[in-house]
Amino acid sequence: MLLALELIGVVAFAASGALAAVQARLDLFGVAVLAVTTGLGGGILRDVLLGVHPPTTLRTWPFLAVCVVTALVTFYFHPQIARLRKPVLVADAFGLGVFATSGTVIALDLNAPVYTACLIGMTTGIGGGAARDLLLREIPVVLRKEIYALAALLGAVVVGLGYLLKLPMGPVAILGSVVVITVRLLALWRKWNAPVPRDPS
Amino acid sequence: MLLALELIGVVAFAASGALAAVQARLDLFGVAVLAVTTGLGGGILRDVLLGVHPPTTLRTWPFLAVCVVTALVTFYFHPQIARLRKPVLVADAFGLGVFATSGTVIALDLNAPVYTACLIGMTTGIGGGAARDLLLREIPVVLRKEIYALAALLGAVVVGLGYLLKLPMGPVAILGSVVVITVRLLALWRKWNAPVPRDPS
Amino acid sequence: MLLALELIGVVAFAASGALAAVQARLDLFGVAVLAVTTGLGGGILRDVLLGVHPPTTLRTWPFLAVCVVTALVTFYFHPQIARLRKPVLVADAFGLGVFATSGTVIALDLNAPVYTACLIGMTTGIGGGAARDLLLREIPVVLRKEIYALAALLGAVVVGLGYLLKLPMGPVAILGSVVVITVRLLALWRKWNAPVPRDPS
Repeated sequence: MLLALELIGVVAFAASGALAAVQARLDLFGVAVLAVTTGLGGGILRDVLLGVHPPTTLRTWPFLAVCVVTALVTFYFHPQIARLRKPVLVADAFGLGVFATSGTVIALDLNAPVYTACLIGMTTGIGGGAARDLLLREIPVVLRKEIYALAALLGAVVVGLGYLLKLPMGPVAILGSVVVITVRLLALWRKWNAPVPRDPS
Repeated sequence: MLLALELIGVVAFAASGALAAVQARLDLFGVAVLAVTTGLGGGILRDVLLGVHPPTTLRTWPFLAVCVVTALVTFYFHPQIARLRKPVLVADAFGLGVFATSGTVIALDLNAPVYTACLIGMTTGIGGGAARDLLLREIPVVLRKEIYALAALLGAVVVGLGYLLKLPMGPVAILGSVVVITVRLLALWRKWNAPVPRDPS
Repeated sequence: MLLALELIGVVAFAASGALAAVQARLDLFGVAVLAVTTGLGGGILRDVLLGVHPPTTLRTWPFLAVCVVTALVTFYFHPQIARLRKPVLVADAFGLGVFATSGTVIALDLNAPVYTACLIGMTTGIGGGAARDLLLREIPVVLRKEIYALAALLGAVVVGLGYLLKLPMGPVAILGSVVVITVRLLALWRKWNAPVPRDPS
């Protein structure tokens, strides 16, 4: 179950990386590198923080294979460079949700305290997109105007509460992912903004 | 003692991150994310290098709480966006000093050799500011003209020498922090510069 | 043998970092910081992924010393700022080759599976240059048009195959490095490009 959820997150993040790379007019290799970095980045960060050596996603081939296939499919089926900003953000939202919750579940499995597990889950969700934006020298999505880190934290907290209430982890992880994705997409769609600094006057 | 010193460093770095975020006109969430990243970044990097899993600052709540409170206070009490460059650098100097020395002490506590402990201390000091500047896509402070990494190394070496001379670590750490902060602020104030490459002629 | 190979890689990457820093008109400290980061970055990343704490390159002084000496020599013997782009890329190619193969050998020594060792080797090769470019806010070399990550992977696979065939690791590592450097330099020289996204029409 967790594996299936995580593969979905990898595909979503790999697609967001590949789409962003196509938009930035990178060549096929650049698209593949960015798909792999975005798809595996969050999980590698999670494993480094939890002390899982070597990182899980570098130990079995399906994760990497899924990223490369996603990159190829994206590259060949997305001829139009224009207007890729929105698909990037939607794919990113799915990756964010799935990784934030699966990261929390994995941290709990490794006996991290609930508080720590939620923070590591949030970091797992944020990591892939941050790596993608840093490599492309874009404003990191986590600093942009719409709710991002908070959405990831919300999903992690859903999982943390489910754990404390001893609910079954599978459905809880799915619920958490849905919460993150919903909040993030609503924030993008409705342009939910937080206050900005007052202008000097 | 070490905990108090480290909380001071976290506040200083969180303030520098929050001020830089306000200057970059990020919204409240962006300010909080940058305060947390800058405040906790160096310590997380240190723990990853030392193999402390999960990182200390993700295990107890005061560190995160202090960052969020600093972000809120900075956001609401700093209405003027202009002229925040100097406060960012001053707060950064305090964080640099405290983290470089406390990082060295912690590495020594974990039985790292003195040489390694000094390098890890320096890296701890540099880490938070580098993360802040990378996320904001600014020239990393560690590459700017005035003495930075060298100041951090100096503080780490003070602690290393104190350790070799079996002096009490508390006062030594404070002395090291004061040395870093003094050198760094003097370098900023007096514009101490290193030589630059000769122009082609 | 492996140590000698790795010191060559450190010198190559340190030189590429120092040259890039001179080109960016950083001062002597900035040149040193960038030489150290580029020279040691890949190895530190490798050790973090493999769980070697603290990282090898922070434990013995020759690695750091070699970076600092390389920075000084580069700084004082490279007065012309112009036309440093090519030397940066050539030095980078040597670092890429040596680190990709030595990283794979080290991962195999630590009992990583062959598949994992190849990926960690590739990451080790890519890490130093990526850190250099991120700090300088340049387009990361790994995303630029000519074959880069694939060349590193090729060298890692040569080592992996040599290991499976139980060949002596020393010559295999040298062969792998030569393969990477040759492929990378040919790609730069002949401008081997991968396909780019089709323009919208």
